[in-house]
Amino acid sequence: MNSTKTWSGRFNEPVSELVKKYTGSIEFDKRLAQWDIQGSLAHAQMLQQAGVLSEEDLAAIRRGMAEISEEIEAGRLQWSLDLEDVHMNIEHRLTGKIGDAGKRLHTGRSRNDQVATDIRLWLRDQISVIQSLIQNLQTALLDLAEQHAETVMPGFTHLQVAQPVSFGHHMLAYVEMLGRDYERMADCRKRVNRMPLGAAALAGTTYPIRRETTAELLGFEEICQNSLDAVSDRDFAVEFTAAASLVMIHLSRLSEELILWMSPRFGFIDIADRFCTGSSIMPQKKNPDVPELVRGKSGRVIGHLIGLITLMKSQPLAYNKDNQEDKEPLFDTADTLIDTLRIYADMMRGVTVKPENMRNAVMQGFATATDLADYLVKKGMPFRDSHEVVARAVRRADEAGVDLSALPLQVLQEFSSLIADDVYEVLTPEGSLRARNHLGGTAPEQVRFQTARWRKLLDGTQKAV
Amino acid sequence: MNSTKTWSGRFNEPVSELVKKYTGSIEFDKRLAQWDIQGSLAHAQMLQQAGVLSEEDLAAIRRGMAEISEEIEAGRLQWSLDLEDVHMNIEHRLTGKIGDAGKRLHTGRSRNDQVATDIRLWLRDQISVIQSLIQNLQTALLDLAEQHAETVMPGFTHLQVAQPVSFGHHMLAYVEMLGRDYERMADCRKRVNRMPLGAAALAGTTYPIRRETTAELLGFEEICQNSLDAVSDRDFAVEFTAAASLVMIHLSRLSEELILWMSPRFGFIDIADRFCTGSSIMPQKKNPDVPELVRGKSGRVIGHLIGLITLMKSQPLAYNKDNQEDKEPLFDTADTLIDTLRIYADMMRGVTVKPENMRNAVMQGFATATDLADYLVKKGMPFRDSHEVVARAVRRADEAGVDLSALPLQVLQEFSSLIADDVYEVLTPEGSLRARNHLGGTAPEQVRFQTARWRKLLDGTQKAV
Amino acid sequence: MNSTKTWSGRFNEPVSELVKKYTGSIEFDKRLAQWDIQGSLAHAQMLQQAGVLSEEDLAAIRRGMAEISEEIEAGRLQWSLDLEDVHMNIEHRLTGKIGDAGKRLHTGRSRNDQVATDIRLWLRDQISVIQSLIQNLQTALLDLAEQHAETVMPGFTHLQVAQPVSFGHHMLAYVEMLGRDYERMADCRKRVNRMPLGAAALAGTTYPIRRETTAELLGFEEICQNSLDAVSDRDFAVEFTAAASLVMIHLSRLSEELILWMSPRFGFIDIADRFCTGSSIMPQKKNPDVPELVRGKSGRVIGHLIGLITLMKSQPLAYNKDNQEDKEPLFDTADTLIDTLRIYADMMRGVTVKPENMRNAVMQGFATATDLADYLVKKGMPFRDSHEVVARAVRRADEAGVDLSALPLQVLQEFSSLIADDVYEVLTPEGSLRARNHLGGTAPEQVRFQTARWRKLLDGTQKAV
Amino acid sequence: MNSTKTWSGRFNEPVSELVKKYTGSIEFDKRLAQWDIQGSLAHAQMLQQAGVLSEEDLAAIRRGMAEISEEIEAGRLQWSLDLEDVHMNIEHRLTGKIGDAGKRLHTGRSRNDQVATDIRLWLRDQISVIQSLIQNLQTALLDLAEQHAETVMPGFTHLQVAQPVSFGHHMLAYVEMLGRDYERMADCRKRVNRMPLGAAALAGTTYPIRRETTAELLGFEEICQNSLDAVSDRDFAVEFTAAASLVMIHLSRLSEELILWMSPRFGFIDIADRFCTGSSIMPQKKNPDVPELVRGKSGRVIGHLIGLITLMKSQPLAYNKDNQEDKEPLFDTADTLIDTLRIYADMMRGVTVKPENMRNAVMQGFATATDLADYLVKKGMPFRDSHEVVARAVRRADEAGVDLSALPLQVLQEFSSLIADDVYEVLTPEGSLRARNHLGGTAPEQVRFQTARWRKLLDGTQKAV
Repeated sequence: MNSTKTWSGRFNEPVSELVKKYTGSIEFDKRLAQWDIQGSLAHAQMLQQAGVLSEEDLAAIRRGMAEISEEIEAGRLQWSLDLEDVHMNIEHRLTGKIGDAGKRLHTGRSRNDQVATDIRLWLRDQISVIQSLIQNLQTALLDLAEQHAETVMPGFTHLQVAQPVSFGHHMLAYVEMLGRDYERMADCRKRVNRMPLGAAALAGTTYPIRRETTAELLGFEEICQNSLDAVSDRDFAVEFTAAASLVMIHLSRLSEELILWMSPRFGFIDIADRFCTGSSIMPQKKNPDVPELVRGKSGRVIGHLIGLITLMKSQPLAYNKDNQEDKEPLFDTADTLIDTLRIYADMMRGVTVKPENMRNAVMQGFATATDLADYLVKKGMPFRDSHEVVARAVRRADEAGVDLSALPLQVLQEFSSLIADDVYEVLTPEGSLRARNHLGGTAPEQVRFQTARWRKLLDGTQKAV
Repeated sequence: MNSTKTWSGRFNEPVSELVKKYTGSIEFDKRLAQWDIQGSLAHAQMLQQAGVLSEEDLAAIRRGMAEISEEIEAGRLQWSLDLEDVHMNIEHRLTGKIGDAGKRLHTGRSRNDQVATDIRLWLRDQISVIQSLIQNLQTALLDLAEQHAETVMPGFTHLQVAQPVSFGHHMLAYVEMLGRDYERMADCRKRVNRMPLGAAALAGTTYPIRRETTAELLGFEEICQNSLDAVSDRDFAVEFTAAASLVMIHLSRLSEELILWMSPRFGFIDIADRFCTGSSIMPQKKNPDVPELVRGKSGRVIGHLIGLITLMKSQPLAYNKDNQEDKEPLFDTADTLIDTLRIYADMMRGVTVKPENMRNAVMQGFATATDLADYLVKKGMPFRDSHEVVARAVRRADEAGVDLSALPLQVLQEFSSLIADDVYEVLTPEGSLRARNHLGGTAPEQVRFQTARWRKLLDGTQKAV
Repeated sequence: MNSTKTWSGRFNEPVSELVKKYTGSIEFDKRLAQWDIQGSLAHAQMLQQAGVLSEEDLAAIRRGMAEISEEIEAGRLQWSLDLEDVHMNIEHRLTGKIGDAGKRLHTGRSRNDQVATDIRLWLRDQISVIQSLIQNLQTALLDLAEQHAETVMPGFTHLQVAQPVSFGHHMLAYVEMLGRDYERMADCRKRVNRMPLGAAALAGTTYPIRRETTAELLGFEEICQNSLDAVSDRDFAVEFTAAASLVMIHLSRLSEELILWMSPRFGFIDIADRFCTGSSIMPQKKNPDVPELVRGKSGRVIGHLIGLITLMKSQPLAYNKDNQEDKEPLFDTADTLIDTLRIYADMMRGVTVKPENMRNAVMQGFATATDLADYLVKKGMPFRDSHEVVARAVRRADEAGVDLSALPLQVLQEFSSLIADDVYEVLTPEGSLRARNHLGGTAPEQVRFQTARWRKLLDGTQKAV
Repeated sequence: MNSTKTWSGRFNEPVSELVKKYTGSIEFDKRLAQWDIQGSLAHAQMLQQAGVLSEEDLAAIRRGMAEISEEIEAGRLQWSLDLEDVHMNIEHRLTGKIGDAGKRLHTGRSRNDQVATDIRLWLRDQISVIQSLIQNLQTALLDLAEQHAETVMPGFTHLQVAQPVSFGHHMLAYVEMLGRDYERMADCRKRVNRMPLGAAALAGTTYPIRRETTAELLGFEEICQNSLDAVSDRDFAVEFTAAASLVMIHLSRLSEELILWMSPRFGFIDIADRFCTGSSIMPQKKNPDVPELVRGKSGRVIGHLIGLITLMKSQPLAYNKDNQEDKEPLFDTADTLIDTLRIYADMMRGVTVKPENMRNAVMQGFATATDLADYLVKKGMPFRDSHEVVARAVRRADEAGVDLSALPLQVLQEFSSLIADDVYEVLTPEGSLRARNHLGGTAPEQVRFQTARWRKLLDGTQKAV
């Protein structure tokens, strides 16, 4: 097929140049080349076993594909827009090398099931990379968590100081989120790892193909059981992009926090210079570009999710050309996620924690007010009353511009005679932390328990929560 | 708490009426009432076992909650906007009934972990309903598939006639999609079915709670291992809505096809009158309102998905009021999905298939051209050559305004001397169907194999594919 | 039409109850009632002028509609699901009151053009409300801007201190955003304010209607020029929701800032107690619920935008039932926007600014470093060199834990001998502000110029920028 | 600045290679180069007039920029990732050529206002191209409309045959939609065409800049009035992408129809071979790839819209690095829209209409049933009764398998004695068309009126509707 040839004897004129460019996919689908070859080799081996291809043909195909694979690696293969896509380019090159055997390779398949197979093989590999990068980031967070099991910081709700928490505990919240992300990727991978090959154009083929053989050769766990569904299903792309969106949302949340914490108003952390940039006109600036960009890139991935969903809405069966638009968002989603996870783990290892600033912040916001209320309840006061007593004590402390723990005992006792000397243990951030010592609580002991649990999970290849 | 009371001694003025209305959630979260009570009863029982509540308190709480539950069922409970949400309304009613024991119920928890628990309990139940409705719809499709294993219809790609397929095979494509939907709901349910209770406001509690006990009482499979994550995680809502979006996309595709097939241009099916409406001015109209509305409602659910994702983007830990906005989209997603699945299964049972119209349509579009090409290949012609030979034969038939099977043998032989009398078996739709007899192919035998496989899966509670 | 009647002689069975509920719209479209009546009255008057209706009929219709309008206002009209929608309910009630004249009202129109007319009349009114609420919020911001033209706060980029800005200048940034929102609403309103009535079902009518007359009676600026487009166009809904999304995005940005500023880490502002809530267990809490909820509600409106877009994608002409799904997202978008704008203006009037905290924050972040660099350039040093000199001075000040302005002259002169005593004027936040005195700059003089400009625009009914 | 240099004396280590790649924008923002130069030249001229730059400096800058512009055109400029973005690359090249004058060019501006200016200049030009392509497509549709003012086709609602319409009238529906798209682009352009330059980093500058001068030189209609808003506003990007989404939705609708119409089930049109492709295995196939791909690409643009909206949600002022993510979706939106409009106009000129198939389809679906009902009403029967009479007649015709117009007079008279011989005029599609002869109706006379109106509008540069 070249630019002056028509599609078949049915056509009166060749495709226009503008159309060729608009409809051609070679510019982006060439990255599927190695997976396309992998699929073709398995298909060829199956055809030979089924008696459709001769041993000689199979040998020739293997030899030719090995050469083409090398040419691609070396960047020597000339991709041609006239040949539309990666499948036709490779087949054309193969036929140029080995003649008719190359033409026979396409027996019993169609580009519809071929492209669906390629994209699943490719995505399966990307998911594996993503899963291992998630674990790498979890490890970086666990290192921080372990180191800072006892570091006190203000826990916020509504960005108001709520109660003291351990910085290690805070890091572990993200380890949990990433644990769910890992699970979702694993669940998605099951549905990616099913083989459409054999569906041919839409209805199957009249050749005596053996799908179990191809599936085994390619490491597919399951075989798509309906040919119409096999060529038109893009669920896996939507599901993957939804799972990727959740990873990005989690990282957008952590990024938001890193940006806050590195602002001079917080001063809780510093990020190593190699992850920051300065300003061309403000000499004092050191900007947390990486988390900002990650926050921004969450929009990109979410946009791809919507693009893919919109693509599929109301499409009648079976294959429609619309589906060609699945590739670019899918490629960019995987690339963005992989780059982001990689840089994020590096960056978290470049985070310096400033415990004294965190502790100072705990002291500005009456973080242990709940502890005081609990203290009164344990001494016998009904909770709703203790809530009110403490609110008034907070007001007094606020007017004095000090923390509750800085109020003298006799002042505290004005609010309730139940208050005794032992109250100051309860009013320290460290005491508050230690007291929340149950599964999932913020006590340093619990933080150490969770880091140990996660280390073990990660060693045994995570089965999260 | 009432409209003239301030929040606590810290506040100088009560909440404004406008704000109360803007921030109150009772209008929509009251539907969580029974799940809220269920969670409270388990919490109370645990507190009693932990020695925090007395036996008497527990008994009082149980008695009071039983009454409240009945009042709600009977529509007798007065919900008050001044009490903000379902939790405060029920607690207030309980305290009115049983006094101080009601106040003690809130020990060791916060509304932050309480609402997260309620919504997960509720969603867990919705997912179970959805799963069983998915299976019900699959059964309706399997009935059609079995009945029409041999019914020939044109298989389309690009909405052009491609190859003959069995109508039963076409129905099975949707059984597969729904099978994946069932799986995704099951995977999602695992992550929904984890207990946040015990996280309290954000950091855990100083009371000696026993989370394993509460989890067991409530049937949670896992316990959220980090308190900060427990109160701020809405992954499950996003994941559920993404899974629901895929169900709706599948139904939008089937709806598109039903609408096409019921158009007089296709005439492939009829939908029973009880699912259609007429026109106020066009007396001849019978409109497929249900599938159109389903197609439209896919937008609704996809919108909710984006709403929830946008909600979570860049939220710092732990709980923020933004999260209150998770409920309405989640409720409406579950409602829409449940109503749609229910009506869809009914409607599919009201579909009448018109086999003769389908077969006539097969004869207009040269559906067996690939079969002729395969025939020539099997007689020894290289595939690319046969493709060209058939294209020319198609052109001739097109000019004559007839199907390939209507061309006399001598005319066919003009295109290739390899063509013999046996070609006509290959050129019939039925012959074409029978020839695609491999796993996932469209042959009636395969359709029967798949319906049997699915019946067995559905009997044994589906583990799909 | 009632529950036991079929659509017409064409139908063999009535609509099922489930379908009636699934497809009925009366539950939500009854809010269009007054606009439906308004449209019907104009249509009736036109029909009478065109000789299709008698004077008596018109009088009867007017009398009947006046009564129905009152019944609706008083909540006395019984809406019936069997009558599907607001149009049929009102027509049925009218016919019950005035007999055959009520039936004749539907002459020359269809529910397709009727509903499109109703929704445009309704939306036109909502936009007017929104425009005036935008101006109200702008006025609240202008009051703050004027009052704080000289209040110094840190201007942030990347949430790092960049340069001092006036708090009034910061408020004006949002006045500008809202100005563009006002413009977009005005532009959208032009396209809303076009009349579909007369398109009938899809092709126009055989009755001698006079569309110019109806348009004039209803205050439409233009008439839809193509009947197919008129009944299927929902552009205006998408455009309005996109414009509404931008308003919500702007408010999500301001909300993010209010939440930051009210956090004890910033302490830049306080929000009046009546806009905040406390915590059921943390007695010290005062949470900025309103801005948090606004931030969350941005997701809701953006979700509706996507829902509407998805709805329209790939719909063939002309009217399809899918379109019924346009109403709920549109209603909820307008309601959310109106409530949010209203509460926001109130809340901004309840903001207390804390200038001393803002100024202290300016002093922590070397906000005047750029001013020092500019100072050196003006004394003859090339900019790139001065940038480097200042960076080193910043480093020294950072190590000393002080602002640049706190470094003694001889220390500053170590970095450059060009520095003299006059440098301290440049290093104060106030000096920095004053120096940016050009159109759009942050100098107090400019802030006052802009507030005056906006007051004038708002007086003359805004033509923004 | 190179890979081994740090940002300033504040930094201890250079940016890591991974970060450089992750945060660098040169790979995509280099396409802004010519607009960046345009902006710089105007800025330099203004600086010279303001006395900040000497005449010699200005001359040198002009000479240098002219050379650089040529180098870019010729593809000879080496873009460097170490120099991050297009601005730094060009400035660096300029300084290499002309020395210190190049360094002085950046006086009184920052990359924040520079990039905002570049992107607006670029987008302004794209919108102009898009507007002229919209008009070109409108012209192609008008040609078809004029040619087929009298061609009868079935008008569909719910994809059921509703009433006969003129194919020209159907084409005009899309002319109207595109007319609104043109208006929206024009409205958006007003807000794009405002100048941020002069906002510097965020607060303005201490140099005596003259923004009116730069604005005039660059052809900006307005000047951004607030520096904080100027550098952080991306409304114009969201608004443009929303307007682009509506264009794509309109084209997705027309594409859906073209695909339907070209399906053998409709056979209403043919699309020229040069816009179609065949199949690698099905020799008979001719697929409407272009409209399918356009339908698919609507998802792409809608995805970009959501990406941009998500990007902006909750961003605090002023500039954040997130904003760098605005460029790729914006570039791809404009490219997709421009390519799509261009190919679409070409393709519509390659559409062959098949009037006989359209007319045959009108005869299958009782398209003139409404006309019969209107006929009876005009003879005195109440509308609701006539609706019922016609429904029964339709049922009879349906059973006989013929159109209403094929029923003999005496059969028709069985349903109503009001029916006379003149009924057959009313029952023909042509009679039905002619009878809808009012503004916006489908009568051929109206079609011709509308095409003439649009020709005039397009000649006078469209002010639509």
